[in-house]
Amino acid sequence: PPGRKVLIVYAHQEPKSLNGSLKRVAVEELSKQGCSVTVSDLYAMQFEPRATRNDIVGCLHNSEEFNYGMETWEAYKRGGLSSDLIEEQKKVQEADLLIFQFPLYWFSMPAIMKGWMDRVLVQGFAHEFPNCYDSGLLKNKLALFSFTTGGSREMYAKGGISGDIRYLLWPMQHGIMHFCGVKVLAPHICFAPEYASEEKRKEMLTAWAQRLKTLWKEEPINCSPEWYFK
Amino acid sequence: PPGRKVLIVYAHQEPKSLNGSLKRVAVEELSKQGCSVTVSDLYAMQFEPRATRNDIVGCLHNSEEFNYGMETWEAYKRGGLSSDLIEEQKKVQEADLLIFQFPLYWFSMPAIMKGWMDRVLVQGFAHEFPNCYDSGLLKNKLALFSFTTGGSREMYAKGGISGDIRYLLWPMQHGIMHFCGVKVLAPHICFAPEYASEEKRKEMLTAWAQRLKTLWKEEPINCSPEWYFK
Repeated sequence: PPGRKVLIVYAHQEPKSLNGSLKRVAVEELSKQGCSVTVSDLYAMQFEPRATRNDIVGCLHNSEEFNYGMETWEAYKRGGLSSDLIEEQKKVQEADLLIFQFPLYWFSMPAIMKGWMDRVLVQGFAHEFPNCYDSGLLKNKLALFSFTTGGSREMYAKGGISGDIRYLLWPMQHGIMHFCGVKVLAPHICFAPEYASEEKRKEMLTAWAQRLKTLWKEEPINCSPEWYFK
Repeated sequence: PPGRKVLIVYAHQEPKSLNGSLKRVAVEELSKQGCSVTVSDLYAMQFEPRATRNDIVGCLHNSEEFNYGMETWEAYKRGGLSSDLIEEQKKVQEADLLIFQFPLYWFSMPAIMKGWMDRVLVQGFAHEFPNCYDSGLLKNKLALFSFTTGGSREMYAKGGISGDIRYLLWPMQHGIMHFCGVKVLAPHICFAPEYASEEKRKEMLTAWAQRLKTLWKEEPINCSPEWYFK
């Protein structure tokens, strides 16, 4: 709907890839709806995934023993985080919906996107004890994980060799997004596009565009073990 | 036992941290046993976590559309991977046991270590269809995930707010290690050391040294959904 803000965090090296096309489809469809869409293209930005002392500008709270979580928390409070983090946090703060678009690497997101989570979702900004899970600081936002897999739908079925695809969503959806208070929409999964025909790949893009048309009417998943493991 | 080779992949910024101490304890105890121990200290090496075109030396197989998995597979076969990857692969190849030592970041390993998985465990080296899972190319090796958490043991219990700690081990142990044929020993978990007394932290170090004494007699876990989710 007009006025809604969307941040797409996108991690693929190749604009011509299916992930690149899925990202473009989302930008087009959501813009058509009147949403304002921002993209963080992590590889293009050469986003830094490593959590280091460079993330804190100026003096450390405890320079005797470097504690990343503590130092970024303190730096956040005094406005002393590095500028690339502040920029990403602003985008998150403004967004109603976060879409993560990536190829599944080793049952999870690529390291460059994991680094975005590690560095951007700082204590004080995204959560602050006891404000986590349903009272996380990013509540009232939605998130959606949209990804492609190498393995087939059959491999990721409940009895399949790689186990139910939902098993691997737990750390990303519950462990990160739900922890920060974000409500999670059902994932969007394109299985094994590398082994699909050109026609099937086109169908995948159409299906995504179609889903986005009614996305804002969707209910979040029940982010409890029942959804993931039963 | 004398002659066994161990690779410790270690991801903490601060040598004085508990993770730093756990790593040192492992080096000491295993060396005392006569093992040959190698450490990949990822932050000290400024290890690159991003999977990019830089990982391939020379021409691409398909320069029209960059496909990281395909390109690194081809590069591996012709000896054209970047030298930092070749070096890590040599260490893996020689090791009987891989120990991953890290603080849990967002229900998973820090991005710098995820990048090690993404970039080092290349198709052709670690797996090659249909050689995955029990026939993965790194079979006859053992792996052990040793990590510290922010949350308490109670939070990570079955009925706890963060769910059973085993849920989040699935992508790392089954999705990565088991996929490559590596057998997985029970994880070693230090819960919430930041909130523990100095005495409790010392006990954590002693317990780890103690476990290492009989490590080679341990049986791997049953790496199936039953172990993780029941």
